[in-house]
Amino acid sequence: MTTKVVIASRNEHKIDEMRRILDPAGLDLELVGIKEFPDLPDVDEIGPTFAANALLKARDMCAFTGLPAIADDSGLCVDALNGMPGILSARWAGGHGDDRANLELLLAQISHVATERRTAAFHCAAAIALPNGVEQVVEGIMTGRVIDSPRGDNGFGYDPIFVADGYEITTAEMDSAGKDAISHRGLAIAALVPVLSQLLS
Amino acid sequence: MTTKVVIASRNEHKIDEMRRILDPAGLDLELVGIKEFPDLPDVDEIGPTFAANALLKARDMCAFTGLPAIADDSGLCVDALNGMPGILSARWAGGHGDDRANLELLLAQISHVATERRTAAFHCAAAIALPNGVEQVVEGIMTGRVIDSPRGDNGFGYDPIFVADGYEITTAEMDSAGKDAISHRGLAIAALVPVLSQLLS
Repeated sequence: MTTKVVIASRNEHKIDEMRRILDPAGLDLELVGIKEFPDLPDVDEIGPTFAANALLKARDMCAFTGLPAIADDSGLCVDALNGMPGILSARWAGGHGDDRANLELLLAQISHVATERRTAAFHCAAAIALPNGVEQVVEGIMTGRVIDSPRGDNGFGYDPIFVADGYEITTAEMDSAGKDAISHRGLAIAALVPVLSQLLS
Repeated sequence: MTTKVVIASRNEHKIDEMRRILDPAGLDLELVGIKEFPDLPDVDEIGPTFAANALLKARDMCAFTGLPAIADDSGLCVDALNGMPGILSARWAGGHGDDRANLELLLAQISHVATERRTAAFHCAAAIALPNGVEQVVEGIMTGRVIDSPRGDNGFGYDPIFVADGYEITTAEMDSAGKDAISHRGLAIAALVPVLSQLLS
């Protein structure tokens, strides 16, 4: 029987990434986005960690819809910024979701930081919450470094200024399949597949 | 004999604070600002800590002028930002020294952070470097919290949004003497007095 699962995100890029990774897993899921629920109250992401925020979002969405809900929280942790922007990645420049402003602010802040100290990692926590109260969180990490200026048109967020360890191109210069195989979100969602499989069976 | 000492800062507010604290110590110092050395090369503050940056500045200024040099490095460490802006406090919004932009960016970044999690501390490292190669660093810390909106016209930097533990007014609402007695810079410079006294005797 097909299980309807709601993805708790307004970010179409994220939803696409999740669909891309979950669809081939053969779990017989119908993944629906947040658009099906126009009356949804806004959830402030106020937890202190990616895992806490992912759980908050999944729990709220499950409670509101009565459906199993998947949510993620992710961000770029820059060592020279003590791990920030981190959970504030999407609103680093003050507003919410202005990728270009966030990215340019980050570059300006670390413009004096030497190349060897520009290490960073993308983190992603993916959570599932079921109507019966069962919850689980998994995490994925992609390590790399922040470069000096943006390159590439794929991806979103800080992708144009991030080069993963072992690569020379940015994650915005990678194709979807290549990125999914190594990305923080790809790894987190992949780790969620067996959890989903077990919880929904 | 009066000893000429150079204060390695372009920030007039900082120089004023240092003079205010050092002058009454009766050390027979002639404190000269950076303006006396118009040919001074720009020093990039690139160390990983306040102490490293203060030492870098004092050392460079001493080497350039041949005089004993005092420098400080200071900033606001916000717990919800993993201790940032920290050493990047003066250039948090990207440029350098735009107090208003830095402060407004910080407020926007932590606008979703609950009152009890808005704890922060001002840190200051003060360094002295002598022509004979002797160097020393001391530090001062003022703990408190970041409020929601600016109050007060005194001070500079993040003073209008910082309330020290035990106080209700911001450090921008305190008078100079009151602030010097508890501030990170006041404490660091005060700790430097006996060091100066010994090194210069």
